[in-house]
Amino acid sequence: MNYLSDTITKPTEEMMASIQHAALGDDVYGEDPTVNRLEEFAAELLGMESACFMPSGTMANLASIMAHCPRGSKVLVGDESDIYIFEAGGASVCGGIMYEPIPTQPNGELAIQDLEKVFPFDPEDPQFALPALICLENTHNRCGGKVLSLSYLKEVYEFSRKRKIPIHMDGARLFNAACAAGVDVKEIMQYADSVQFCLSKGLSAPIGSIAAGSKEHIKKVRTLRKMLGGGMRQVGIMAAPALVALEKMTSRLRDDHTRAKKLAQGLSSIPGIKINPEEVETNIVIFTVDEDICTWQRFLALNENQGLIFSEMGYGRIRAVIHRHISDDDISSTISTVRSVIEIEMTQTV
Amino acid sequence: MNYLSDTITKPTEEMMASIQHAALGDDVYGEDPTVNRLEEFAAELLGMESACFMPSGTMANLASIMAHCPRGSKVLVGDESDIYIFEAGGASVCGGIMYEPIPTQPNGELAIQDLEKVFPFDPEDPQFALPALICLENTHNRCGGKVLSLSYLKEVYEFSRKRKIPIHMDGARLFNAACAAGVDVKEIMQYADSVQFCLSKGLSAPIGSIAAGSKEHIKKVRTLRKMLGGGMRQVGIMAAPALVALEKMTSRLRDDHTRAKKLAQGLSSIPGIKINPEEVETNIVIFTVDEDICTWQRFLALNENQGLIFSEMGYGRIRAVIHRHISDDDISSTISTVRSVIEIEMTQTV
Amino acid sequence: MNYLSDTITKPTEEMMASIQHAALGDDVYGEDPTVNRLEEFAAELLGMESACFMPSGTMANLASIMAHCPRGSKVLVGDESDIYIFEAGGASVCGGIMYEPIPTQPNGELAIQDLEKVFPFDPEDPQFALPALICLENTHNRCGGKVLSLSYLKEVYEFSRKRKIPIHMDGARLFNAACAAGVDVKEIMQYADSVQFCLSKGLSAPIGSIAAGSKEHIKKVRTLRKMLGGGMRQVGIMAAPALVALEKMTSRLRDDHTRAKKLAQGLSSIPGIKINPEEVETNIVIFTVDEDICTWQRFLALNENQGLIFSEMGYGRIRAVIHRHISDDDISSTISTVRSVIEIEMTQTV
Amino acid sequence: MNYLSDTITKPTEEMMASIQHAALGDDVYGEDPTVNRLEEFAAELLGMESACFMPSGTMANLASIMAHCPRGSKVLVGDESDIYIFEAGGASVCGGIMYEPIPTQPNGELAIQDLEKVFPFDPEDPQFALPALICLENTHNRCGGKVLSLSYLKEVYEFSRKRKIPIHMDGARLFNAACAAGVDVKEIMQYADSVQFCLSKGLSAPIGSIAAGSKEHIKKVRTLRKMLGGGMRQVGIMAAPALVALEKMTSRLRDDHTRAKKLAQGLSSIPGIKINPEEVETNIVIFTVDEDICTWQRFLALNENQGLIFSEMGYGRIRAVIHRHISDDDISSTISTVRSVIEIEMTQTV
Repeated sequence: MNYLSDTITKPTEEMMASIQHAALGDDVYGEDPTVNRLEEFAAELLGMESACFMPSGTMANLASIMAHCPRGSKVLVGDESDIYIFEAGGASVCGGIMYEPIPTQPNGELAIQDLEKVFPFDPEDPQFALPALICLENTHNRCGGKVLSLSYLKEVYEFSRKRKIPIHMDGARLFNAACAAGVDVKEIMQYADSVQFCLSKGLSAPIGSIAAGSKEHIKKVRTLRKMLGGGMRQVGIMAAPALVALEKMTSRLRDDHTRAKKLAQGLSSIPGIKINPEEVETNIVIFTVDEDICTWQRFLALNENQGLIFSEMGYGRIRAVIHRHISDDDISSTISTVRSVIEIEMTQTV
Repeated sequence: MNYLSDTITKPTEEMMASIQHAALGDDVYGEDPTVNRLEEFAAELLGMESACFMPSGTMANLASIMAHCPRGSKVLVGDESDIYIFEAGGASVCGGIMYEPIPTQPNGELAIQDLEKVFPFDPEDPQFALPALICLENTHNRCGGKVLSLSYLKEVYEFSRKRKIPIHMDGARLFNAACAAGVDVKEIMQYADSVQFCLSKGLSAPIGSIAAGSKEHIKKVRTLRKMLGGGMRQVGIMAAPALVALEKMTSRLRDDHTRAKKLAQGLSSIPGIKINPEEVETNIVIFTVDEDICTWQRFLALNENQGLIFSEMGYGRIRAVIHRHISDDDISSTISTVRSVIEIEMTQTV
Repeated sequence: MNYLSDTITKPTEEMMASIQHAALGDDVYGEDPTVNRLEEFAAELLGMESACFMPSGTMANLASIMAHCPRGSKVLVGDESDIYIFEAGGASVCGGIMYEPIPTQPNGELAIQDLEKVFPFDPEDPQFALPALICLENTHNRCGGKVLSLSYLKEVYEFSRKRKIPIHMDGARLFNAACAAGVDVKEIMQYADSVQFCLSKGLSAPIGSIAAGSKEHIKKVRTLRKMLGGGMRQVGIMAAPALVALEKMTSRLRDDHTRAKKLAQGLSSIPGIKINPEEVETNIVIFTVDEDICTWQRFLALNENQGLIFSEMGYGRIRAVIHRHISDDDISSTISTVRSVIEIEMTQTV
Repeated sequence: MNYLSDTITKPTEEMMASIQHAALGDDVYGEDPTVNRLEEFAAELLGMESACFMPSGTMANLASIMAHCPRGSKVLVGDESDIYIFEAGGASVCGGIMYEPIPTQPNGELAIQDLEKVFPFDPEDPQFALPALICLENTHNRCGGKVLSLSYLKEVYEFSRKRKIPIHMDGARLFNAACAAGVDVKEIMQYADSVQFCLSKGLSAPIGSIAAGSKEHIKKVRTLRKMLGGGMRQVGIMAAPALVALEKMTSRLRDDHTRAKKLAQGLSSIPGIKINPEEVETNIVIFTVDEDICTWQRFLALNENQGLIFSEMGYGRIRAVIHRHISDDDISSTISTVRSVIEIEMTQTV
């Protein structure tokens, strides 16, 4: 069982079939009808003016940040956010933008007072790079798939209006958030100026992300996409399965969440594994292993020998991501395997 | 008939079938077997150490330039090159690199003495950004698909060794060049340190380009690809048809070249159209229309009304690109149509 | 009395006289003998191979960081450091470098384990921008002029060797650090690869900073200085007073430190002012005022009415910097004035 | 006699005296009264809203370009301009801006039709970086100190209004231009949106340049100056002699021009030296030496042996710059010396 990431999901048969029948064209000239349909459908689903297909979430975030932030400004990001940690500093390299990491709360939120502190008393003082964008992550990966509450989103949104800077949501797993909160994605999106979500994670499309926002914003994103090298040709072969993903796969995320909960409960009963199942809200399970039993490196290796692949999320935290290829039986067998790995290890430690 | 670009080519049936049977994996983790096979096959074909799948030629060029050129250096490019004109200044934006445009000779070459001039007498003088890379384009788009001769390539290569800077080849239509010159691509590649070629042009794959070079170079390109947002997931759905393109489609480029020649000959017999068929070497036909008869804008519009799509390449030059969807009959009918468009126009002008 | 900063110090009479007799030349051509003498003298004093005059500490830090860090790498800086807070994000804008702020300890140190955490487990993973430089600040401005101990410097230096990245010291007030620690600056500099110190702060020269390091490093800094616009002409008019500053003014910093201590002791006896005089090590005094008595904004304004100028250092902390224009009597009178300001305020609050 | 550049001029006695009496303050806080006076005086002289003291012309040009051009846009510069050739690519490095070199006419102009060509037919096409600024150089260094005519300036200005992009003038030797044209600098400046001129060239101040433009523009320049490291402290020591330069030295440029003409006439009478004295308009004399007599490298070396220092301006062109330290007698003796150098050389060649 591979819990590495939901990015490893393979396309469904329906997706593969959709590719065969996709109307294709050259998207650099805006002439791929399948992409056009996907972009319209996505914008509508999100309740936003415009949307744009991107080859990856990294590019979707990068182009969105660059569209919002002029050279020499600051983007406020969580210190535990994927944008800050896993995207190679692209906004500084390509955009001349300074990252300002804000402490991430355990529930994935950035506290308003922490955001407030970053705004200099005298914005005219040329010593300071000025904040130009707040980025939120929803669900929050390194906080264990936490969902940002609508009330929190409203609060940050109001703060951002007062401070006159926009909000970009890294919604790589946006539909997991909507599903877990039991709300329409539109309700979430009313509190952000732009968003990106991944088609290739739980939704199981082979490739791609959607960037969305106002017409003006997406026009800028599209221009930046070209410069960054994300303008592609017969994109319909990716857009067709992505359409299936958006139409058919959002509701099944619920199953992943149920299974994640089950896995967390199972793991919590194993001695030496620390995890609070109450905190598992979506498809990500993060836990730690008592260092007296084994290091996280050894834990990963021992389980890999048993066919279980997990990953590490910093500071020795172990992550399991539930997705379409993980069944109820897989969960049960995973719990047994981990239990026996730990038990053997404990015997040896003694 | 659509002569806009060879990028508009649709995948073949065999390509579409290949997608269905492609082994897929998550390429961000290096686990897509089809991509891995494509990259190995491409490297071998080129006679280079390593290759990397890229979502576009723009990103392949951008990452290659950034891999070669440190911040604050100069990339020497043709003033009529696609890199300089059509890639949105990416090397300056993302790389802090200065473009130095070199006059492009009518045959697509950059004269050695023009390259020579750019190197400052005193390279220690901090006033100067220093050249770090020469880019060549082969075949040369805006010069009408011209092929760079092996003897010229050898000469620039020797110059570059003397000056201790590498050569990158924008080989968007590299296989057209090899085909027209009747040589193996390896013979061309011996005179360059890195290359990119497009799978999506004459080779008809739906999407993508290959960047190739030394192992060390491609490692850097791969890192830059991630930052730029070109790291994608189940890339096999693009790599499978790309493999078909590389295995099956290179030899058919000959037909495009023959038809381009035929089109050029036909057009040259139409009064008011200026073109020398001798100069058509590959699949690109560039001509001008006597302004006394009609402007290029009007010429494009009148032909579009007749179902013929051409494009403009700067300074009123009209471009027709021949590709897999253009047959011998299409060429004949195109010549007739253009002739009648011009004749009607001439009558009206009088 | 103006406690705004030691940057406001005016040149001494001897400095002004030195300008009159300075041999001048065009420094862009390396022909200003006074600058050349200053650079040699500074390098010798620091025990470093080479030194370079810079128009400001900001440019000295920026060019030093850019010389050490390639595009796309990370510079590790204290989250309370001047480089991170007060230098407008220059390394991201001009260098494509990502800032990684590390928690600053109350004594100005960056904890080794916090530095350690930033290095990714797998440096080959292209998701991560890689650390390329550690910046330390000595004395530490926002920590109240704290001096980094030699034992700490040795420890970070050893860590940096293990991790194979260099150390740059923002020694804007380096001579204050050496003076307070009672050591030669050379002893401090043995634990850094490069440094910048300001001639215009306590040393009282009108303008400028020195960047120093290895020959190779300073050659790069000099090249970057030209690009940034710091190459100037008859620089001798700044270098001559700077030479006086270096030769004559370093020993008098002791007096500033004594007075700072006295001010801190006096302030600590005033109700509602929080400060531990033990923590004042050099010429900076940082304290807070009980918010129940008045806000920091009001405190600044009330004292300014009495001719006392302080500044704010974030989070309501008030800073007083002692320098050549502040005498023992000034300190006594300042304490009285602040005491009466607070007393009146307390009466009104009641 | 040193004809290297007018940048080598030493300050006058009056300038040196002015430093002694200059009121000083900390310019980072806007509190240096002498700088403030200089900036107001310069703005008034130019007829522009606002002005800002800069440490160099390079930084003045760089900050001006960055203030006008967003990341990813193009700055149009002459291919023979100092900005393009001698300023180390700063706008690409620090600004993410692409340079587009335009052919420089022999009289220093950029032809309107050449500027016109750079604007893409479809500005919405994301393939193109869009022009955001035109830079002119007046007088034009590498064209031999040529003055741009008011009629030409008016024409470019009108073109720029039509195209809705601003004009920046690199007026390093602006007062030479005004003097030679016999007009007030205000007349020149009516046709530009921003300008920089050097205080340290013919005007003989030791250091510095003035950037000027609208209030809004200069506010941006000032912010960029801080980030680039051009914010300095007791700047009055540079501003005081600069004020003398502006008040007393502009009218004496006439003498440099007369002497330059005389030098050109003398040189033109020497066999093997090619120069048209009619083309010498200001203080720069550019000539070539017949390669059959000697190379430019040898010419420079032979004259240096005789105490005459010239420089090379690309393509073997030799430059002599006339300035305050060159007298009428110097000109006569220079002509004799060069003549004898050439004569000896001719004898040996035979």
